[in-house]
Amino acid sequence: MSELVLTDQERARAGARLVTLLDRYERDLPGSRVLPEPDRAQLATLLADSVPEKGIGVDGLFDRIEDVILPNSTTVAHSRFLAYVLGPPNGVAAYAEAVAATINQNCNFWQLSPAASVVERSVLEWLTSIVGFPSTAKGILTGGGSLATLQALATALEDRVPGFRRTGLQQSAHPLVVYTSVEAHRSVDKAAAILGIGLDHIRHIAVDDQNRMDVAALSAAIDADREAGLRPWCVVATCGTVATGSVDPMDAIADLCQEQELWLHVDGAYGGLFLLCEEMRDLMGGAARADSISLDPHKLLFAPLEAGCLLVRDGTTLRAAYAFESSYLTVTEDPLMTDYMDYGPQLSRNFKALKVWSALQAFGVDAFRAATRRTLELSQQFARGIEATAGLTLLAPVTLTAICFAVEGASHDEHTELLETLAADNTALLGPVMINGRHGIRACITNHRTTTEDIDLILARLREPNLLRR
Amino acid sequence: MSELVLTDQERARAGARLVTLLDRYERDLPGSRVLPEPDRAQLATLLADSVPEKGIGVDGLFDRIEDVILPNSTTVAHSRFLAYVLGPPNGVAAYAEAVAATINQNCNFWQLSPAASVVERSVLEWLTSIVGFPSTAKGILTGGGSLATLQALATALEDRVPGFRRTGLQQSAHPLVVYTSVEAHRSVDKAAAILGIGLDHIRHIAVDDQNRMDVAALSAAIDADREAGLRPWCVVATCGTVATGSVDPMDAIADLCQEQELWLHVDGAYGGLFLLCEEMRDLMGGAARADSISLDPHKLLFAPLEAGCLLVRDGTTLRAAYAFESSYLTVTEDPLMTDYMDYGPQLSRNFKALKVWSALQAFGVDAFRAATRRTLELSQQFARGIEATAGLTLLAPVTLTAICFAVEGASHDEHTELLETLAADNTALLGPVMINGRHGIRACITNHRTTTEDIDLILARLREPNLLRR
Repeated sequence: MSELVLTDQERARAGARLVTLLDRYERDLPGSRVLPEPDRAQLATLLADSVPEKGIGVDGLFDRIEDVILPNSTTVAHSRFLAYVLGPPNGVAAYAEAVAATINQNCNFWQLSPAASVVERSVLEWLTSIVGFPSTAKGILTGGGSLATLQALATALEDRVPGFRRTGLQQSAHPLVVYTSVEAHRSVDKAAAILGIGLDHIRHIAVDDQNRMDVAALSAAIDADREAGLRPWCVVATCGTVATGSVDPMDAIADLCQEQELWLHVDGAYGGLFLLCEEMRDLMGGAARADSISLDPHKLLFAPLEAGCLLVRDGTTLRAAYAFESSYLTVTEDPLMTDYMDYGPQLSRNFKALKVWSALQAFGVDAFRAATRRTLELSQQFARGIEATAGLTLLAPVTLTAICFAVEGASHDEHTELLETLAADNTALLGPVMINGRHGIRACITNHRTTTEDIDLILARLREPNLLRR
Repeated sequence: MSELVLTDQERARAGARLVTLLDRYERDLPGSRVLPEPDRAQLATLLADSVPEKGIGVDGLFDRIEDVILPNSTTVAHSRFLAYVLGPPNGVAAYAEAVAATINQNCNFWQLSPAASVVERSVLEWLTSIVGFPSTAKGILTGGGSLATLQALATALEDRVPGFRRTGLQQSAHPLVVYTSVEAHRSVDKAAAILGIGLDHIRHIAVDDQNRMDVAALSAAIDADREAGLRPWCVVATCGTVATGSVDPMDAIADLCQEQELWLHVDGAYGGLFLLCEEMRDLMGGAARADSISLDPHKLLFAPLEAGCLLVRDGTTLRAAYAFESSYLTVTEDPLMTDYMDYGPQLSRNFKALKVWSALQAFGVDAFRAATRRTLELSQQFARGIEATAGLTLLAPVTLTAICFAVEGASHDEHTELLETLAADNTALLGPVMINGRHGIRACITNHRTTTEDIDLILARLREPNLLRR
């Protein structure tokens, strides 16, 4: 037998250890530390001991995971983990990932993964319906929002730059320009840099007093670039900016893109999936007019990392950007199955769709809608609490679930200290933020476990005298 | 309680179902079909039923997985799954992935994932030592070999193109040119197209009679491009071509790159990890002279998909290509921990290192070396068997574990039919190949479960009269 397979006995042992670990992890959550202090000496042994010649076996592995890995990991599933945009995995995440790892389907072309191909399509068609794209849309699950944005921009290049695949960007008489707002996620800059567009060809458009892209300023920037002999090419609008959750004016931007013949990509990594809730359609329904949209099921669908998504209105343009011939693969199109290697930069791909699909099946859309709606309500509760507290100020309107606030008169260092204090006494893990040059604190309730009691607890702590060590 | 969390009872049930599924899957493997015929009517129900409003619960989910997903998935773990370069996951894969999904560490910056940061570093330092890179090297785990190559080329752009981040490729007076062989993986073309280099600026250099890049032809192509006013920039050499497993002459190419001041990337996605075996150092040890190398732990380390890797000799160049400032993240460098978002295109990243590290811990390096060595030996057994069989011809020398052969006088269609027959009667899943315009069949033993008996069984079937339906 292969030396890399478990015996029946070892497999039984591994199963028992896993079940115990998962159960204990869940039961210990309420009393766990949201941000444990890492034991650096212990972690350093991971480097010093490095990789053993002889294996330590199943029990040795689980011991090591429980003794070294778990205590030195953040408790993302804690109900007061409210930093960045990262949530606790849903309840079937571990099981779905274990199955995916076992069957190890390669989601490159369908013959190697028939069920996976249809499951991914099912998830993508459902996401398409949520954002209101037409049935001509196609998409692909990605390694997250940053890669989805990069893949969208590469699609826009192939679609809008004549001869792009053959000559690339290397013979641009009129350099392309991409527009986004000053509040956009840095992944837009990063993608544009990686793709050879260059930061000199990105315009960061000013925002209005609600942190939304200023469409008049966008229009003026486009005009100025055309006059300068550059070629306006693409606008990246944000549906839920990472700092404040603001939503760019989708319809006005879509009108302008149509008039100016620009590709419109909507970065919906944080906010797009709030479209699960009917009441958000007025605010962000215009995202359906985009040429492409990125979403992150590993945020609001609480899939474990990584599960990003790119949807493109005209699916043929997505395929045109990524389909390549290859001498050792023979593939044909199929009415039911999809060869996802023709829709993105990867050849070998794992079965990301299983964890998304499994959770939707097990819990149903209703449960996700309810959880999402609750995060919106808790955010309003948090915002009202901040507003009602002397000495605290909201730094921005709370549109979605990001609550940005400052302690009046506190410096950047004092805010940093406060964040550390709140984490150290296990009040909550919140994050730093800077808005219009003002430093502050940001809570983001991308957490289906957070309760009104959690918010009350945090607010009570924020109202204590001598909150700042000064 | 959150509607997306399992109750204690549901969790116990999910654990029991998972343990049973994993056990049954393993026990059923010997009798399983390597390539089941997909039940299209059943798969179509996944689209028609789509996503339910009310969840079907834990048992409903496991039933659906067992009834619809598993029977319509290929059996990658079958000992005669010998198609493409895809192997059965090692024995702890499912457990490691379940733990990773549960703790859901975001491996972007270390404060959110201290243990994960050190585990990834431990894996990368071990891989660095395997390929013989200096300790100045840094790397990152990626979503596979194609992305690793793309990330390598983007690093080479940042390093070798003055002002790349600011101006991109949009003002190239002298277009950059990248060189690879006609036998290189298509991901090189794909990456170059996506990155705006353009297929017109890729040279596919001829190979010698052992399918290795012809260095004289490479040198001539570089000279010709310089004379034409283009700018030779990068060579992608292959350590294990996907079709035949040939290894480009690393030292001669490294000499030329040094002389010509070109970035040398080695695509070691398939072959690089054979360096686990001392006896391969003569053949591919020169890969250590590269500026960057891509590896695929999801191939020879039998990690479940996805686990690719990029290593860059001078780690500062990798960081220079991917580190960006961001207003809402404050990060500082740390002697023990690494912020991996500064080493690749993603911000949010999952804990890919856990599955690689877990298997190395549980089984030890010795076990991987033994498994790798066995795949090399089985490949020689297979090759000898083909050579000893009248009517079959090897299409290429067997350097690693890819065995390419043809039925003498058979057409492309006949080879395709033969592949289908072998899969249908469960002899083996092999793949198609084309070498020097000649169609044939390719077996690739990236499989730690394959035995000499499996090879004998396949050879016996290939020796049967009336193998071809003609």
